[in-house]
Amino acid sequence: MHFADKIIKTSIDLSPICVGIDPVLEKIPEHIKKAALEEAWNELDAVTIAFAEFGMWMIDAMQWLAWICKPQIAFFEKYWSYWVRAYEEIVSYAKKNDIIVITDWKRNDIGTTAEAYAQGYLDKISAFGKEFSEFQVDALTINPYLGTDSIKPFLDVCKSNDKGIFVLVKTSNPSAYEIQDLPIWDELLCEEIARLVSTWWQEYLGENYYSSVWAVIGATNWEDVKYLRSLMPNQIFLVPGYWAQWGSLETIKYCFVDWIWAIINSSRNINYAYLSNNKYSDNDYIEASREEIITMRNILKSI
Amino acid sequence: MHFADKIIKTSIDLSPICVGIDPVLEKIPEHIKKAALEEAWNELDAVTIAFAEFGMWMIDAMQWLAWICKPQIAFFEKYWSYWVRAYEEIVSYAKKNDIIVITDWKRNDIGTTAEAYAQGYLDKISAFGKEFSEFQVDALTINPYLGTDSIKPFLDVCKSNDKGIFVLVKTSNPSAYEIQDLPIWDELLCEEIARLVSTWWQEYLGENYYSSVWAVIGATNWEDVKYLRSLMPNQIFLVPGYWAQWGSLETIKYCFVDWIWAIINSSRNINYAYLSNNKYSDNDYIEASREEIITMRNILKSI
Repeated sequence: MHFADKIIKTSIDLSPICVGIDPVLEKIPEHIKKAALEEAWNELDAVTIAFAEFGMWMIDAMQWLAWICKPQIAFFEKYWSYWVRAYEEIVSYAKKNDIIVITDWKRNDIGTTAEAYAQGYLDKISAFGKEFSEFQVDALTINPYLGTDSIKPFLDVCKSNDKGIFVLVKTSNPSAYEIQDLPIWDELLCEEIARLVSTWWQEYLGENYYSSVWAVIGATNWEDVKYLRSLMPNQIFLVPGYWAQWGSLETIKYCFVDWIWAIINSSRNINYAYLSNNKYSDNDYIEASREEIITMRNILKSI
Repeated sequence: MHFADKIIKTSIDLSPICVGIDPVLEKIPEHIKKAALEEAWNELDAVTIAFAEFGMWMIDAMQWLAWICKPQIAFFEKYWSYWVRAYEEIVSYAKKNDIIVITDWKRNDIGTTAEAYAQGYLDKISAFGKEFSEFQVDALTINPYLGTDSIKPFLDVCKSNDKGIFVLVKTSNPSAYEIQDLPIWDELLCEEIARLVSTWWQEYLGENYYSSVWAVIGATNWEDVKYLRSLMPNQIFLVPGYWAQWGSLETIKYCFVDWIWAIINSSRNINYAYLSNNKYSDNDYIEASREEIITMRNILKSI
């Protein structure tokens, strides 16, 4: 099955929930950290072990409730050589559990540099005549500021290798307006970017109707989302920053249309649910995350 | 000495040349790859060894000619866990040789995510009560699309830790115009970004007059560069994509002003100079790169 079909089928038939994986050392249960420190050969190695454990706990908590995860690479990358091992272990565990992996990455470059990124994350790499494919993920988030040159190398790999990219169109942070809402003719910059995304999508349609060029859309207000949806009627939306408040839920509604859905991400609410309620002890961390996913599922069902 | 003062002093008193470090396995001399493969425990490990060797050769070639290097992280990152070790080795070798390191990175994020990046690359990190600072570099290239929220965490670290960021304002790739040249009121988007960079610079001026917020400017045509220089009279420009053609050299002139300079980057021309001329054998790779740097220095002197 094409990846686009798979991710659409997953989000419609199974669940549109995407669980972010944001490891923060201070928030990981003490007994996990203690065990990691005993096993490790230094403090940074202990971070690797604790992070891998944390990621696998998230994937366990998702079982039969959510099928898409989004590791935020910055939290791993903070720890240099050590991070990649934890990240790789989580990606491989996710794959074993048939979980789709979107690496949250928000970067980009041009030409052979973008090709190197695309190969490293979405394709096989080769070294001294041998090929390695165990590091592949399913999709990446991508920054559009450099234009088509920076998108094409990814689209080529997406096409040949059945992967996807989510282009940053409109983010939900307070200062996003400074650049993304600048007026271009009668529209806003983010709306121009939406048109570009739609063009990239058409050019790379191929035999797969859904293509593999999608959009990151912060659910900040429903008018914006409704208009962006009209500009990108065929794009899967990745919606970060889910909050269980009615305002943002009303907005999320406009991300969904009959034939194509949105993926709604929640990270820290799920990751550290065991810290948010006194009823949980350190040992209930998986159960607490799982209950938070169930709550989110029920709220999303209600809209 | 403040880092801003140091980098300005370096570019004015010593040399404005920045040597990009873009490791491409296929282009590295055969005897280095052969030795790496013999020493390594698998093919990917051999990539690490060959890349580290390659990076150190670049730094050797720079001696007394150039004091700034710019590793392009994508070429390392392609090889997952393996890359970081090569990258770390090169950074540490550069520091030992008193070479300024700008990591070419072109990414960004918001809030605690951006903080994690800023800590990992420009600050100490702590794990289990221990601090690690050996991974720090001097500066990063940053994508502005998310606005001030995504810049502030870096500025905080730059201020407390005396580091710098180069914000992508105008890139030199053919499709850059699609987004960067969109019309905003009477200007272009990249010019609005230039105004933002100037604002960020003022807010973080502190006691260090030169601050630490600078700009990446592709030298595509002199009128654009001249106008961008007028909007950012106090910013160091990082100019990638140097070609020894008179057109781009004329343009480069407008990046320089009396009191603040530009850093002119060349990567592959220097990195693989030994492949460009039959007079060089595989063993002349350092000498060939060194001669290319000398040529670049003489051309830049002439303008």
